[in-house]
Amino acid sequence: MIKNIQVNAAIIIIGNEILSGRTKDINTSIIAIWLNSLGVRVQEVRIIPDIEEVIINIINQLRTKYNYVFTTGGIGPTHDDITAQSISKAFDVKYEVHKEAYKILEDYYKKKKFTEGRKKMAWIPDKAKLILNPTSGAPGFIMDNVFCLPGVPSILKSMLGGLKNEISGGKPIISHTISLRTVESEIAKSLTSVQNNNKDVEIGSYPFFRAGKLGVAIVIRSEEQSKIDICNSQILYFVNQKNIQIIDND
Amino acid sequence: MIKNIQVNAAIIIIGNEILSGRTKDINTSIIAIWLNSLGVRVQEVRIIPDIEEVIINIINQLRTKYNYVFTTGGIGPTHDDITAQSISKAFDVKYEVHKEAYKILEDYYKKKKFTEGRKKMAWIPDKAKLILNPTSGAPGFIMDNVFCLPGVPSILKSMLGGLKNEISGGKPIISHTISLRTVESEIAKSLTSVQNNNKDVEIGSYPFFRAGKLGVAIVIRSEEQSKIDICNSQILYFVNQKNIQIIDND
Repeated sequence: MIKNIQVNAAIIIIGNEILSGRTKDINTSIIAIWLNSLGVRVQEVRIIPDIEEVIINIINQLRTKYNYVFTTGGIGPTHDDITAQSISKAFDVKYEVHKEAYKILEDYYKKKKFTEGRKKMAWIPDKAKLILNPTSGAPGFIMDNVFCLPGVPSILKSMLGGLKNEISGGKPIISHTISLRTVESEIAKSLTSVQNNNKDVEIGSYPFFRAGKLGVAIVIRSEEQSKIDICNSQILYFVNQKNIQIIDND
Repeated sequence: MIKNIQVNAAIIIIGNEILSGRTKDINTSIIAIWLNSLGVRVQEVRIIPDIEEVIINIINQLRTKYNYVFTTGGIGPTHDDITAQSISKAFDVKYEVHKEAYKILEDYYKKKKFTEGRKKMAWIPDKAKLILNPTSGAPGFIMDNVFCLPGVPSILKSMLGGLKNEISGGKPIISHTISLRTVESEIAKSLTSVQNNNKDVEIGSYPFFRAGKLGVAIVIRSEEQSKIDICNSQILYFVNQKNIQIIDND
């Protein structure tokens, strides 16, 4: 890995519902796959509680460490939605009604349904750039390199499309998976050799149970298709030698 | 929340496959629900790459900060499984063949199938206590307050049962969910009042889409059933006043 040309990101999942185990996080996967396609690697994810002090500290730690930081959750109208006020404090800017957000919400709800509860969603850090929400009106926002998105996966996903031009990534990261009917210990030694021969490629090995059967997924990741092809052929070489069944190679 | 009697934990998910978005993390949910039942709250989750230096740093940060630390992933036989060696370095103890683990694996695989690849799984930090694995032989281990478990959810789950006596938790955390056919902005103000009236109870509000319809799940969490009951009745009061449909109240 040539680190200095890589563009990286961290994700902060804000929400007690993930920490309690009630809800499984799928936003990390949605954001990471999207970022990979733009040439940005997620280096770290934090799942943290709805506590202002914690949010402020972690935002300030990570926004200087990574090119991009994404937060999910906590931008709705209820008492436990404290992301916008926390980001304002982290950046030491005013937390107030954002005129453009107010206008968007007023248009979305029409005047008579634009209740006090809904007006809270127009409170956004001063000078933040809005992220439009094609699903449910309430915008997210960008402060410097920090992108704040909602926690509901389908809404979050619908908002990523409009963000493409805000990200300056490196080369897209290509991923190739070979699924084998084997166990890790059968291939560990050979796979280590392939990794040692191809140090700038990321090779992962992931055991799985599917339909009651054991298998191993080997995942090769790189910005260069040619490097993936070389690893792929080296892996297929030992797989054939060992007479291991290939379930999938895509 | 009376913080000084609370027992807390952090989870470290070790694995590039989660950071790349390829695999969705469900281990957090499995461990958190199990810990809640033992009276331990998960305060923080880190998802980190398979990089030794990163693992060592984060282990050493978190093991002094929380009562318990759980890691998942990286204890198999392949080149990207570096949790055991990283933990050894974090604790500055020898990383070597653990006699008890060796015996377990030898018995599990029988002598002739106990290959070099499999022997790597007997390399465990010196003086670590083993966590037995009823599913696939290879044990996890405990170093001080750090519990190292595998990444495959079904195997991890099967290993938690044997760990109950290793955890000294507080009172189990009880959780109660009320699902409503409404949107958050309709209930935000009333819910804030309930939260303000019951500051030692954790009340969360989570919008959802289910079968194409909007709803909100209100989750009440506390160690005291009586406190949950009070919040529940205060919430039902305004829900009835507002004529909001209750989908579920369990």
